[in-house]
Amino acid sequence: MKVLVATTNMNKFFEIQSIAPSWIELLSLSQFEQVPKVEEYGNSFVENSIIKAVNYANFFQIPVIADDSGLVIDALDGKPGLQSARFMEGQPYRIKMTRILEQLKGVENRNAAFHCAASFYDPKTSILLSFEGIIKGSIALEIRGEGGFGYDPIFVPLHRTKTFGELPQDLKNAISHRARAFRGLFHLISSVFHSRGPMPSGDRAG
Amino acid sequence: MKVLVATTNMNKFFEIQSIAPSWIELLSLSQFEQVPKVEEYGNSFVENSIIKAVNYANFFQIPVIADDSGLVIDALDGKPGLQSARFMEGQPYRIKMTRILEQLKGVENRNAAFHCAASFYDPKTSILLSFEGIIKGSIALEIRGEGGFGYDPIFVPLHRTKTFGELPQDLKNAISHRARAFRGLFHLISSVFHSRGPMPSGDRAG
Repeated sequence: MKVLVATTNMNKFFEIQSIAPSWIELLSLSQFEQVPKVEEYGNSFVENSIIKAVNYANFFQIPVIADDSGLVIDALDGKPGLQSARFMEGQPYRIKMTRILEQLKGVENRNAAFHCAASFYDPKTSILLSFEGIIKGSIALEIRGEGGFGYDPIFVPLHRTKTFGELPQDLKNAISHRARAFRGLFHLISSVFHSRGPMPSGDRAG
Repeated sequence: MKVLVATTNMNKFFEIQSIAPSWIELLSLSQFEQVPKVEEYGNSFVENSIIKAVNYANFFQIPVIADDSGLVIDALDGKPGLQSARFMEGQPYRIKMTRILEQLKGVENRNAAFHCAASFYDPKTSILLSFEGIIKGSIALEIRGEGGFGYDPIFVPLHRTKTFGELPQDLKNAISHRARAFRGLFHLISSVFHSRGPMPSGDRAG
C-alpha cells in the first residue's frame, strides 16, 4: 500500500519511515509539485491531524498519514499546546524557549508532556484511524543540548535527567511522543488492512 | 466492551444496536443525568462525528460512538449537507422538504446522496476509528410515504422507485447510509479490539 506522509520535513519523514512496516510504501509531500494549504482549526491534536489527513487525501486521492504535536505545560494552563508551532511565530525556538523559562521562573510545578496525534485516512474506503502518543516529563531550568528540534532542549522525560536535546537521537526516537503515536497508528493500519483482508465489499456506497 | 452511543434518539439507538456485534454492550445517553453540549464546528460529516465522539468520551471516560449525517443534493451545491438538521431550524421536516422541492422545481439533475460518518473513540487507549457510509439516489418530485424520519420521504435510492418514507423500515435499515457507516465502523472496531488482542502495552504514554 502506498501512503503519503503529509510533511515536508524530511527528518520527520525518515523518523516515521523507520517505524513503518515493510508492506507500506511511504511517499513524502516533497514528491508533489502542487500542495494545498490546509488550515488547522481543530481544538485538539487529534482533530488537527485528522483535518490534515482527510484534506490531503481528498486532494491527492491516495491514503495519507498526518500528525499534529505540541508541548503541554501544566503551570501554563496547557500552553503552548495546540499553538506550539505558532507561539511567537517567526521567532527562533531559542527565543520561544527562553520566553517559556521566564514564565516558569520560580514556579515549582514544572510538569509537562509532549503530545502527538497521528492519523490515517484512505479516501477510497473512507476508513479513518487515529492514535495519540504522549510522553510525560518536566521543563528543565535552562536550555540544554543541541540535538532534536523545537522545544526538545527544555524537555526532560520522566525518569531521565537529560533533555530531549541532550539524549542520543535514536533513544529519543524510540521513546518519543511521535514514535508512540506512529507505532500505535501502524498497529491499527495493520489490524485493519493487513491481517484480515479488505472490508466487506459494497459496505460504503452503492 | 461497554460503548456509549452519543444519541438521545432511541430509534437511532435500536437501529445501531441491531448492527452491533454481540460482544459490544451499548449504552445510550439517556442513561446519564448530566450530558455536555458539544458544538459541531467541523467542515465534514467525518469531522463532526469525531468531535462528538472525542468530547463525549473525554467527559464520560468510556468509549463512545457518534455519527453525523446529512442529505447532499448536487443541484443545490451539496446543500443542505452539513446543515441538514439546522436548515430552517425549528420548522417541521414537511416544511423543509417542501422548500427543497420548490428550489428543485424544473431542475433536471435531481441527484442526491445521504451521507453518514460513524466514529469510535476510546479515551483510555486514544484509539479513534471512523467510517463513512453513503447511499446514492435522487430527489422525488413530491413528498411520498410516512415511514422513516427527516428527509426520507423525498429521497429515492438508486435502482428503486419508492422513497425512504415508503420502503419497509427493515429494508431501509439494511441499505441506509447509517447502516453502511455502522457496519464499517463495527468491522474496524472488531479488527482492532476483538481479533488481535489489545494494543502493545505502554505504547501511548509512560
